[in-house]
Amino acid sequence: MTRILEDLAATIVARRGAEPDTSYTASLLARGTAKCAEKFGEEAIEAIIAATSGNKTELRAEAADVLYHLLVMMTARDVSLEEVLDELSKRTAMSGHEEKAARRP
Amino acid sequence: MTRILEDLAATIVARRGAEPDTSYTASLLARGTAKCAEKFGEEAIEAIIAATSGNKTELRAEAADVLYHLLVMMTARDVSLEEVLDELSKRTAMSGHEEKAARRP
Amino acid sequence: MTRILEDLAATIVARRGAEPDTSYTASLLARGTAKCAEKFGEEAIEAIIAATSGNKTELRAEAADVLYHLLVMMTARDVSLEEVLDELSKRTAMSGHEEKAARRP
Amino acid sequence: MTRILEDLAATIVARRGAEPDTSYTASLLARGTAKCAEKFGEEAIEAIIAATSGNKTELRAEAADVLYHLLVMMTARDVSLEEVLDELSKRTAMSGHEEKAARRP
Repeated sequence: MTRILEDLAATIVARRGAEPDTSYTASLLARGTAKCAEKFGEEAIEAIIAATSGNKTELRAEAADVLYHLLVMMTARDVSLEEVLDELSKRTAMSGHEEKAARRP
Repeated sequence: MTRILEDLAATIVARRGAEPDTSYTASLLARGTAKCAEKFGEEAIEAIIAATSGNKTELRAEAADVLYHLLVMMTARDVSLEEVLDELSKRTAMSGHEEKAARRP
Repeated sequence: MTRILEDLAATIVARRGAEPDTSYTASLLARGTAKCAEKFGEEAIEAIIAATSGNKTELRAEAADVLYHLLVMMTARDVSLEEVLDELSKRTAMSGHEEKAARRP
Repeated sequence: MTRILEDLAATIVARRGAEPDTSYTASLLARGTAKCAEKFGEEAIEAIIAATSGNKTELRAEAADVLYHLLVMMTARDVSLEEVLDELSKRTAMSGHEEKAARRP
């Protein structure tokens, strides 16, 4: 399963600047960062509701939507998946409460 | 960079059920799904604000927080990263507007 | 301007249980609390984006949407505007940091 | 109950520009719009979770928090309660699905 997210990220980056009517991703990016952030926010809310109401099937689908729209929002601002995973990696190298302390100075 | 997310997901799953004071992840999971969903929501809001205000450094950090807290919220509901990536993978096999149409029946 | 919110709240409560196709409010309430919470969340995200990007006209419109959808979500759970304003009133009787301390025990 | 929200809005506006350590509201406004929007977002998420999980007492408290933080976020951007209620009032003059259609052109 390891390359799914990387492949999706590459596809999204490749669609930036493409004709808006050639793909959903291209049309979203063409509408600007605020619209991409709005869509990400909507999916985050739906994931929260699915988690709270205990619907596993829906949470699985909404979590996938969150990942896709997070990548689109990042792409709108030129932030790469590699940078974000690198950031995560540094934190994972630490552990437990020390890690939390480091993140919230 | 490929295994960072998978390793983090495995670490989070391993901490479920551990003593809450042994790690931040264990303490979060011990407080229940609603609390995990709340923390995920807070990070999603911070990522949206970072993206909208154009702060790349902050967006990178917030996106990492979103990924971590998404995994925690999924773990609280027994949804695995593998299932979610599998869901993403099915969608990526489709493309463009057809894919969007399939997701939103 | 004082009775606008109270009148709107009364209208929303009156539409609960009405035929879904008679009004937008009735159709929203007929779809259940989770859908009402989702719509409230979408408007909250849009208000956050409008505030962050500095668009006053949009923030005014989104804040109105937030108030309307907050009332709908409250109605879905039988929480009245009167109860919520009463709660606010108790807090306003306190002041400054003491008030915050009282809210977050 | 009619003047509670108006009185609170006036108090918040009056605290803008006050010394941050004199009140929670003043300290929040001093930290800027993004921080006010973040706090509003956190309360919105908590209200969504309370509504979804069916906790009426919590929803009442969270709805009060949403109203307070919405007013603070509006104040940070010089949007008045009067303007927002005026906007709501225009919509309420319309009804049902026509009103929805007018809002979402």
